[in-house]
Amino acid sequence: MAKVITPRNEDYSQWYNDLVYQSGLADQSAVRGCMVIKPHGFALWENMKDVLDRMFKETGHVNAYFPLFVPKSLFEAEEKNAEGFAKECAIVTHYRLKNDPERKGKLIVDPEAKLEEELVVRPTSEAIIWNTYRDWIQSYRDLPILINQWANVVRWEMRTRPFLRTAEFLWQEGHTAHSSSEEAIEEALKMHEVYTRFAEDYMAMPVIKGAKTANERFAGAEETYTIEAMMQDGKALQAGTSHYLGQNFAKAFQVKFLNDQNREEFVYATSWGVSTRLIGALVMTHSDDDGLVLPPKLAPIQLVIVPIPKPSSEIDLVAEKILKDLKSKGIRVVYDRDEKNRPGFKFAEYELKGVPLRIGIGSRDLEKGVAELARRDSKEKVSVPLESLVDEVLKLLIEIQSGLFDKARKLRVEKTKFLDQWSDFEELMKEEGGFVYAHWDGNSETEELIKEKTKATIRCIPFDPDLKEKGQCILTGKESKGRVLFAKAY
Amino acid sequence: MAKVITPRNEDYSQWYNDLVYQSGLADQSAVRGCMVIKPHGFALWENMKDVLDRMFKETGHVNAYFPLFVPKSLFEAEEKNAEGFAKECAIVTHYRLKNDPERKGKLIVDPEAKLEEELVVRPTSEAIIWNTYRDWIQSYRDLPILINQWANVVRWEMRTRPFLRTAEFLWQEGHTAHSSSEEAIEEALKMHEVYTRFAEDYMAMPVIKGAKTANERFAGAEETYTIEAMMQDGKALQAGTSHYLGQNFAKAFQVKFLNDQNREEFVYATSWGVSTRLIGALVMTHSDDDGLVLPPKLAPIQLVIVPIPKPSSEIDLVAEKILKDLKSKGIRVVYDRDEKNRPGFKFAEYELKGVPLRIGIGSRDLEKGVAELARRDSKEKVSVPLESLVDEVLKLLIEIQSGLFDKARKLRVEKTKFLDQWSDFEELMKEEGGFVYAHWDGNSETEELIKEKTKATIRCIPFDPDLKEKGQCILTGKESKGRVLFAKAY
Repeated sequence: MAKVITPRNEDYSQWYNDLVYQSGLADQSAVRGCMVIKPHGFALWENMKDVLDRMFKETGHVNAYFPLFVPKSLFEAEEKNAEGFAKECAIVTHYRLKNDPERKGKLIVDPEAKLEEELVVRPTSEAIIWNTYRDWIQSYRDLPILINQWANVVRWEMRTRPFLRTAEFLWQEGHTAHSSSEEAIEEALKMHEVYTRFAEDYMAMPVIKGAKTANERFAGAEETYTIEAMMQDGKALQAGTSHYLGQNFAKAFQVKFLNDQNREEFVYATSWGVSTRLIGALVMTHSDDDGLVLPPKLAPIQLVIVPIPKPSSEIDLVAEKILKDLKSKGIRVVYDRDEKNRPGFKFAEYELKGVPLRIGIGSRDLEKGVAELARRDSKEKVSVPLESLVDEVLKLLIEIQSGLFDKARKLRVEKTKFLDQWSDFEELMKEEGGFVYAHWDGNSETEELIKEKTKATIRCIPFDPDLKEKGQCILTGKESKGRVLFAKAY
Repeated sequence: MAKVITPRNEDYSQWYNDLVYQSGLADQSAVRGCMVIKPHGFALWENMKDVLDRMFKETGHVNAYFPLFVPKSLFEAEEKNAEGFAKECAIVTHYRLKNDPERKGKLIVDPEAKLEEELVVRPTSEAIIWNTYRDWIQSYRDLPILINQWANVVRWEMRTRPFLRTAEFLWQEGHTAHSSSEEAIEEALKMHEVYTRFAEDYMAMPVIKGAKTANERFAGAEETYTIEAMMQDGKALQAGTSHYLGQNFAKAFQVKFLNDQNREEFVYATSWGVSTRLIGALVMTHSDDDGLVLPPKLAPIQLVIVPIPKPSSEIDLVAEKILKDLKSKGIRVVYDRDEKNRPGFKFAEYELKGVPLRIGIGSRDLEKGVAELARRDSKEKVSVPLESLVDEVLKLLIEIQSGLFDKARKLRVEKTKFLDQWSDFEELMKEEGGFVYAHWDGNSETEELIKEKTKATIRCIPFDPDLKEKGQCILTGKESKGRVLFAKAY
């Protein structure tokens, strides 16, 4: 069955879905809004997870695991957080099924097995975790607590898209406890920086760093730091957030500590998370009409060797040698000697899956002592002498990684405007979209109004000091302290 | 606060709970039957997971992820499986909370947000996975599918104990699809062997390999292979199971394939899993009245260096050198230079946590060019010249690992009997317990009767060919084809 991918310029949204399903990243499931993460998608997530987990541990964090369920009374304790998630959560009300007396072989919920208190399937874990931290913290000596959790969470979204917005998703959530506001803010900023490094150095995805406006903050946070990436259609994607929670959760759950002056104080908190949404971001940042384009540092397979037209003892010998040499350099490489499929089919398949490099080995090439090396990103092919093949592969993997970043940054530059006229802003958002740096008066009402008129939201108040110039709000003309980043968003 | 652990011979069950909670493996939570896995416990699980995941990948498996929820209509499709789990599952019936009109700040389940079809929180994933496999399998060319999933599952157990039996637990579940019965059975046995190697070579926990009786099989399986370990109190613990599922799930979910004769056939299945229960098994196999005893291959910290009585520049220098040398050998080592606590306190703390080796460095020892090396398992201490310290540590870690296995096997030998008289059997099960190899007539009724009379169950029909001798059933005197393993079990 030939795989057809809708071109980006025809229907960007359909292009994305085609890619995700046909490249083997994910599949639809029988559960509304939940996807199956297929082996290729999960291998990508494992690579992302491994890097992030190492970065968390290097910054002093340890992993733990807290329950999937949050009793309703805990869920509602921090009011803003509860309000933010109450409308979209899965609720367990019963703990048993029984045989349907009217239909043989069918089951019904046993009305006698109703829970005294309903359980919310965690949409995020602040409540259950801070309820536990209360028992772990007495004195400043017990602080800081620097814990991360890898888990599944459920948010009952009405409109879902694979990876970008699903009812269940996988993520990590850091939850830290501190003895001072300064230390907690420092932690939140540190993890924001970790996310930035991960996005740029591993995903090859340039991001804009900044703080969310009050409207867009995490429910229950005092401050939300975000990294915002631009997708190829000019829309923004929030790729990771880190929250300074102040004492909100400590107050809701009565988590106090004796400070070094022997005085009782509420504990300061942060939380921070990234999710399988990053896979969606990765797909939309680099891929093209032929399939996925994956950055070498995260690609499940970095290089594939294809015999042309089919394996022979001569080709096997050369391939096995390359395989061995590259594996010893830590390269993730496979030799596809499957005889059921022709080279052309394999080329298309590995392009679809986003494998960064391909080596084709044919007997005619071997006579000349060369092999053909093909890049997924640029589609360039080059004939390389066998003796320098390994070095060339290592060099190209680095080149592709930085090339992808540069290309994405170039696109962002092209699609970023500094605007001062409302009519220009309105028109741009109606037509081509993209990122706009514009002045804003700091009012939530103005923010809402701009969103209503153009669907663009304030993605962040950027940290970049160059944008802190004074000016007039693009909508109201009122005074502004600096430019903020506007875009339509995923 | 001094930590007190109830001695094993006083109250084995309390000893276990004390150990789990006080050594920092787990904590109780606000959710009935759910525990919090604390950083020390989770680090242990991560080490177990890493080894198992590598073993799965080496045997050709890949990871994927399927939804947390199983729609009721899928859950009930395989009748035996449904029957086995229906009585203990968490059920999601609603997807929204709303403000309680009668109590400000409180939430209630929104009756208008009732799901059309209830969702079962997965107690195991055969149903949701086989419903997906239907779309992935057309021909024998699509087979085998060799997928594993690391996930949380929920079984609404009434009597729970940390790690051993919890409402939510973490596990891996392999789900494979094959084109022949032979190949599926081979796969189930292969994974059974992987579990055996993991238990014995990494957990240092000797196991008995065998098949479950029909009564004790996984709900929906044709055959269940198990590994059974003996705990220090003589009870058995089922440590890992691997199931040959025949065509049961393929029939329930209509998963067919065209075989190489171009004929349509139902697909053959296996599933296999181990869970965080293994942490409970590990604790109960090796630990003592002073705390955990962990096998070096899985211990989160393999060696701790303690300055005596406190750090000095001289001690720091030596400690840092040892730290560096051991880390370069891949040893997980920490140097505890915390000045708040005295050496005696630290010794007790690391013993409680089960750290296999401890090096004490004092200035008087340094003058002599030696340091004190203490073993957690035997409590032996030995003075070692600094220059041979690293070699000694490496040697001892291997020795401790195999020593723990030998000790556990020795205990099992001591507590294992071959019995042929019913009165002996009854008396033994009333008093000291342990493993009993006895003849059984193969009838489920006899099995039930023995369980009623003694609480002992058939843990497995062992693979060991030496036990296949004919004889008379220990209860009925009827003909028996071989001895089976009886024990009371966790």
